[in-house]
Amino acid sequence: MREVAIVGVGMTHFGELWNDSLRGMFAEAASGAMADAGVDHLDGLYVGNMAAGQFVGQEHLGPLMASQIGMAGIPATRVESACASGGAALRAAYIEVASGMSDLVMAAGVEKMNDGADVTQVLATAADQELEAYHGATFPALYALIARAHMATYGTTEEDLAWVSVKNHHHGAMNPKAQFRREVTVEQVLGSSKVAEPLRLLHCSPVSDGAAAVLLCPLDQAARYTKRPVKILGTGLATASLSLADRKSPAILDAVKDSAVHAYKMAGVGPGDIQVAEVHDCFAIAEICCIEALGLVEQGKGGAAARDGLTALGGKIPVNTSGGLKSKGHPVGATGIAQAIEIVEQLRGLSGDRQVQGAEIGLAQNMGGSGASSVVHIFGRV
Amino acid sequence: MREVAIVGVGMTHFGELWNDSLRGMFAEAASGAMADAGVDHLDGLYVGNMAAGQFVGQEHLGPLMASQIGMAGIPATRVESACASGGAALRAAYIEVASGMSDLVMAAGVEKMNDGADVTQVLATAADQELEAYHGATFPALYALIARAHMATYGTTEEDLAWVSVKNHHHGAMNPKAQFRREVTVEQVLGSSKVAEPLRLLHCSPVSDGAAAVLLCPLDQAARYTKRPVKILGTGLATASLSLADRKSPAILDAVKDSAVHAYKMAGVGPGDIQVAEVHDCFAIAEICCIEALGLVEQGKGGAAARDGLTALGGKIPVNTSGGLKSKGHPVGATGIAQAIEIVEQLRGLSGDRQVQGAEIGLAQNMGGSGASSVVHIFGRV
Repeated sequence: MREVAIVGVGMTHFGELWNDSLRGMFAEAASGAMADAGVDHLDGLYVGNMAAGQFVGQEHLGPLMASQIGMAGIPATRVESACASGGAALRAAYIEVASGMSDLVMAAGVEKMNDGADVTQVLATAADQELEAYHGATFPALYALIARAHMATYGTTEEDLAWVSVKNHHHGAMNPKAQFRREVTVEQVLGSSKVAEPLRLLHCSPVSDGAAAVLLCPLDQAARYTKRPVKILGTGLATASLSLADRKSPAILDAVKDSAVHAYKMAGVGPGDIQVAEVHDCFAIAEICCIEALGLVEQGKGGAAARDGLTALGGKIPVNTSGGLKSKGHPVGATGIAQAIEIVEQLRGLSGDRQVQGAEIGLAQNMGGSGASSVVHIFGRV
Repeated sequence: MREVAIVGVGMTHFGELWNDSLRGMFAEAASGAMADAGVDHLDGLYVGNMAAGQFVGQEHLGPLMASQIGMAGIPATRVESACASGGAALRAAYIEVASGMSDLVMAAGVEKMNDGADVTQVLATAADQELEAYHGATFPALYALIARAHMATYGTTEEDLAWVSVKNHHHGAMNPKAQFRREVTVEQVLGSSKVAEPLRLLHCSPVSDGAAAVLLCPLDQAARYTKRPVKILGTGLATASLSLADRKSPAILDAVKDSAVHAYKMAGVGPGDIQVAEVHDCFAIAEICCIEALGLVEQGKGGAAARDGLTALGGKIPVNTSGGLKSKGHPVGATGIAQAIEIVEQLRGLSGDRQVQGAEIGLAQNMGGSGASSVVHIFGRV
């Protein structure tokens, strides 16, 4: 397999973009990535999207988006793994370039959630319809169960959860693309309205519109397009049962663990080598479970990580320097690509106030459902 | 890139399977393919599905279906390209095995269309929502426009269209998996009710449930699993604008042409080498346009092909020996995989009454929307 680099990135603002369409946002992000790499053609395109069919009545995004950016004709396919659709699209593009089949391939993600659909019900179709969604379990409820299990097993507190939000809003306040560019306090989080106990409004990522795109090519061609290529060192994708009830413990995310094991092995690095990470904080408890499953902290110690400053900028292992899904926003199909962009920009040294000084190896972890699918990519400065 | 073989196939009956669920049908097809190859594990899974989110409220089919067949944990991703989702899943699996990343990968497709959804409206989300679907254009109407353009340009007649249905029902009557195992006459087709002029009920493929699965591995490992491996000689995927109005001529399917060019080039063969083909006859006119775009007949001569017996069993180039989408059924996400199975079985010499004697090279062409995406695979007997 060939070595693969990312040579261009582009994304829209994330937020309630009432005046922007699905295809318009996609074109903005894609053309941004193409301009970043100075290219006017692509050999292939993978579009990560969870549910545009349900959100805005539009399936078949491969050819639609290829045409939209003036590339009608090229191979273009949509990839879906719920909220991990972006990560899955990146992995598909990686495999295609690594295989030798194509040279210049875009992985992009897009989601238009603010357009009138019943968002919580649409998202619930990523849960097990027969065992969960049909009976009324939506994701706030499922993650509340995960939080309760983590609290019961490891003594994690509501304040621990709040610190995840405080940290990510602190980071997001410095991100010009973020949906919420403002700080929140522990008191504000703990005083916000209850969504599904113990989760409150400020523990939850928002409903967002947005798109993000990255451009991949063989590492040995990267110098044609950029002075700052970033190498993909490893990829891992793993799954677990869709329904929470079918897992050994709701507080342990086996798919995240397994996807990390694959990616670490392929990259030839371990958790201790990661200097900056984007992880899937759709709810505050998810960040806690994910950093444990990734091995960034010991199992059961995730609750203390944000509170103790370990995962903040300046801490031992900064997590979600972009603001994470909580503050940057979570247009579900775009999230996995936006995470990769944050790590690429960190390794390029272009993250401004959010820069992790000297970062050479970073990780992005993108998750679907209540952890039924997880994609991990590890990136390295060239 | 490594050479890749198909070493196992499995599929359900196609039809109105009111008592079968999405996951149940998938498991039946997948376990059939695994039994055919004598394996009890997979290294990866791609699920082709167009719109289970809209049809039955279930996205995130990768992990769901991996768990369903006892393989929770493995990398599993859904791939969507409308009615070409099955073909796109096969191509993704091919690339993953060819790349060297994984050895034993399943490509499977599934669709549950008979479960209460407004099927024509759901399918229309594969058309351009802003330029077509929103304004009331559904696929029968779009293919009627294609038919009118073909008639005006090449003199194709309603009777030509009828002969496609007659031929495919003749083939399907011999296929134990087909939805409609009965012959129809030209008179019956031309006397059936109008759907969208000039298309009548018996020019249209039905609403179907079903699943199909194939198992891929490196060619040099194929002997472990089967005495009759079939090699994938070439793959091509191409796109065109989603909306018909944005194309030069509605009667010419550029994506089909382009996908065929790629696949022929990779396989090192031409249209004259193909001995049996499955093409995407969602409407009778589609088969006519596709055999022209694939180069199996001259441009403009597709109308006469079925009428003259050229594409029937025993003809120069038998097309849709399975019965095609028209008679075998068209559970949209499963169709591309079922087409591949028909060609694999033909090259294995296991097609019974439908056998094309001595077939060594075959082609499967799967299409999305009104031709906005097309996937071609060429297979060879080992």
